[in-house]
Amino acid sequence: MNLVTNALGRMVPTEINGRPAVPFPGVDRFRPSGCKAAPRIPTVLDYPRDGNKVVKDLKTALELAGVRNGMTISTHHHFRDGDTLALQLFDICAEMGLRDLVWFPSAAFPCHAPLIKHLDSGVIHHIEGSLNGPLGDYCTSGRMRGLGVLRSHGARAMAVQDGEVHIDIAVLAAPSADCFGNANAVNGNAACGVLGYALADAMYADRVIVVTNNLVPFPCIPIEISGSYVDYVVVQDSIGDPKKIVSGTTEITRSPDRLYIAELVARFIRDAGIMRNGFSFQAGAGGISLAFAVYLAQMMKEAGVKAGWVHGGTTKFLVRMLEEGLTDALVDGQAFDLDAVRSIAVNRSHIGTAPLISYNHHSKGNFINLMDVVVLGATEVDLNFNANVVTHSDGRLLHGIGGWQNCLYAKCVILAMPAVRDRIPVIVDEVTTLCGPGEMIDVVVTELGIAINPRRQDLIEAVKGKSLPLKSLEEMKAEVERLGGKPKRPERTSRVVAAVKWVDGTVLDSVFQIPEKQ
Amino acid sequence: MNLVTNALGRMVPTEINGRPAVPFPGVDRFRPSGCKAAPRIPTVLDYPRDGNKVVKDLKTALELAGVRNGMTISTHHHFRDGDTLALQLFDICAEMGLRDLVWFPSAAFPCHAPLIKHLDSGVIHHIEGSLNGPLGDYCTSGRMRGLGVLRSHGARAMAVQDGEVHIDIAVLAAPSADCFGNANAVNGNAACGVLGYALADAMYADRVIVVTNNLVPFPCIPIEISGSYVDYVVVQDSIGDPKKIVSGTTEITRSPDRLYIAELVARFIRDAGIMRNGFSFQAGAGGISLAFAVYLAQMMKEAGVKAGWVHGGTTKFLVRMLEEGLTDALVDGQAFDLDAVRSIAVNRSHIGTAPLISYNHHSKGNFINLMDVVVLGATEVDLNFNANVVTHSDGRLLHGIGGWQNCLYAKCVILAMPAVRDRIPVIVDEVTTLCGPGEMIDVVVTELGIAINPRRQDLIEAVKGKSLPLKSLEEMKAEVERLGGKPKRPERTSRVVAAVKWVDGTVLDSVFQIPEKQ
Repeated sequence: MNLVTNALGRMVPTEINGRPAVPFPGVDRFRPSGCKAAPRIPTVLDYPRDGNKVVKDLKTALELAGVRNGMTISTHHHFRDGDTLALQLFDICAEMGLRDLVWFPSAAFPCHAPLIKHLDSGVIHHIEGSLNGPLGDYCTSGRMRGLGVLRSHGARAMAVQDGEVHIDIAVLAAPSADCFGNANAVNGNAACGVLGYALADAMYADRVIVVTNNLVPFPCIPIEISGSYVDYVVVQDSIGDPKKIVSGTTEITRSPDRLYIAELVARFIRDAGIMRNGFSFQAGAGGISLAFAVYLAQMMKEAGVKAGWVHGGTTKFLVRMLEEGLTDALVDGQAFDLDAVRSIAVNRSHIGTAPLISYNHHSKGNFINLMDVVVLGATEVDLNFNANVVTHSDGRLLHGIGGWQNCLYAKCVILAMPAVRDRIPVIVDEVTTLCGPGEMIDVVVTELGIAINPRRQDLIEAVKGKSLPLKSLEEMKAEVERLGGKPKRPERTSRVVAAVKWVDGTVLDSVFQIPEKQ
Repeated sequence: MNLVTNALGRMVPTEINGRPAVPFPGVDRFRPSGCKAAPRIPTVLDYPRDGNKVVKDLKTALELAGVRNGMTISTHHHFRDGDTLALQLFDICAEMGLRDLVWFPSAAFPCHAPLIKHLDSGVIHHIEGSLNGPLGDYCTSGRMRGLGVLRSHGARAMAVQDGEVHIDIAVLAAPSADCFGNANAVNGNAACGVLGYALADAMYADRVIVVTNNLVPFPCIPIEISGSYVDYVVVQDSIGDPKKIVSGTTEITRSPDRLYIAELVARFIRDAGIMRNGFSFQAGAGGISLAFAVYLAQMMKEAGVKAGWVHGGTTKFLVRMLEEGLTDALVDGQAFDLDAVRSIAVNRSHIGTAPLISYNHHSKGNFINLMDVVVLGATEVDLNFNANVVTHSDGRLLHGIGGWQNCLYAKCVILAMPAVRDRIPVIVDEVTTLCGPGEMIDVVVTELGIAINPRRQDLIEAVKGKSLPLKSLEEMKAEVERLGGKPKRPERTSRVVAAVKWVDGTVLDSVFQIPEKQ
């Protein structure tokens, strides 16, 4: 494999799974060329005259869709760790004797560990998507054929739109659908709120199979995925585990350190003047983010400030803000809990969105361009504010990128993270894997204080004289290392097992194989 | 111009405005090839960093969009006879010295008569769209350079999708929009309900300009046209005449003959067993259709029957059915009155749609495939049930095709029309212009009775023994001619001035020049 050094000094491959790849040339230096993917022109003559696209079962739908060796099959991850469809799908493919398929999920979860047997047996050639848990280990240990390709949610949808990834068959779980294939995620016992991750797949895949456990009369309202993109509808008893469909990570942290970090973030946003009428923010799930939203809501109430819009991943805390009138609108990429699911069904100001729209870098602007502030996590940050979100300090793939990279385009980007995680310092000399260029990260908040990127003199000015515990990253790092010592660099081979794409499709970094444990 | 005889014996051109055209080969005989239009891949780098796309005025937006001679510029017709934007647009183009533009509206109205001066002066080369009133006369008299191309709403959207018509610049009036270009038609003093006619234009045009008189904070909810397709936003005081934005044709006919026709249609639908729980129908504006909906609603109440969905053009009568629980859903392509506008803003079961979805023949099915019955008008019908909807019996262009052709794909197609209109018999030996092949038209209802197409033995069986005044078209025609004589055939030259496309893009018929009046 040919590796070159990109603009940030990272070694990256020039070819990924047989396709040429462009090394990251610097932030905002890459310009796309050419045209969007162009699906073949269908005709109603090839579809049932009465509009009823229901077929017997998923296997039948796959056969009708012409599934064959080597195809790329996509699924979405709105069911998160409750997904069962991807497992069912590849069990059927194995039964059909198929080989060398590419799974192109919008994200993978620990529940997908059983797919390892299909990777081992050759049914699946490789997974092109975020890898964590057992699948992350599988990839990092070098056992997967093909490279992992880690893309942000926006870059995944963009890759489909741009024709970089051609989906042969999209298999889309839908909590509600009608016989024509119109689908939504609002109703049914597997309701998951929104289906935005499936939008690009539906628009650009050759064949689209909607799988539902809740067939409703036409028209399925609201129509989130249009049946005009759908080839076949499959009705089966279950499409996922309703109890696990929404993330379990909606408990506010009880750690005093992390609560303090959350409070500091909220205070920073208030004191820097970002918290003003009509402002916008995004904060994900996860203990610190949740606590942050609660602190911020309290400060907004005290100051009589109302947000213009909030971008979710949505939790009950954001829904509460909407319903208490603390924000005019909630723009929702995915539901993290059942309050979010309930809310989108009843609140007109709670609307769904899709990474193809909110996060797409190859678009006529995107929603993140308009956002005032995002609060993100990270596994590591270095002294230049470069950050890592996909690997742990031991080099193993831990997380997908999610919307993290996309969110770096907000007007103020705050990383909120404990300075020490599981006894390992997170402020390092050099991040194990580079996911976010430091020039795009404005503030790092830990329990030790707040570090503002020197590039953001405006923010430094804005909080001058406020009682915020400002510190440099160097100071925080020294403090941590004084107590716990310097972290070890991970042991890694020189073999690339996965590539990290930037939001524009260029290659930002590589993930290297780590030696098997003795 | 080379003319050939198509499968229904009509003379049609093989080339339209410089592009090759396929003569109609028979219903469902044409299969498309190739891929959908592929817009160039944009990048957020070319759009304002803060997401604010507002520019000074429409002229500035056109300049920034790179307007130049010969370009195709589109507008939508949701404002119907209240549109002022198209006039403003071409006045600006004239002022800029532009020439040979193609106007590609989703429909034209009498209010657009002032564009004749721009056709005469050469600013506009030709209008590619439905032509009626003064513009229809202009075209039929042979004064327009270029051929008129009459497409159904579905075929227009399809032509854009298929790349048959490339829109350089779409100029889209939006009753509400935010600075990013997200737009809807629900709010503002120019609210017109839905923006579905603009969807294909937004998705496929090179440049999209949203013009609004009601700039709202981001995000403009609901997002009907996504700002991710939009290049520029223009804010100005007025985008149309609010009083005329919704059609004036929402008065129920007072003519006893027409009321009787409406009642007969409703009785036929009831007695043929089409009116059953979960059924679907479409009926447009216009006196007979409105009265029909009222009769049908009454019969549904009496029989305890509830519709599954109704497809609009929506009027207060359909809204009333929704709000009285006589239909589960209202699927709305355009609002004909302010009740429809109000309803779509408050009723979750009243949803917008677009011809690209509801009516698109080059799609994975469309909504009309699922529809049980449509009630349509026509200007003429012949003994083979072939019908005309665009020209009057004197050969002049009177109407656009609208969704009429698309609706012929419903499971039962009923033409409801007076047997004599303005003293002219409508049942003729041969339709002046063929818009709908007789094999797709099932029933013709006039004040003289009900004629069922002999191809539909099932319908003939279904109403056997019911007290419906069944008659053949021949009988009705003889009756009319006994009273009023045989209609004259129009005087026409052999010069083609417009082509009538079928729903699949093939050429169904031609409109011929008529000699100037002496």
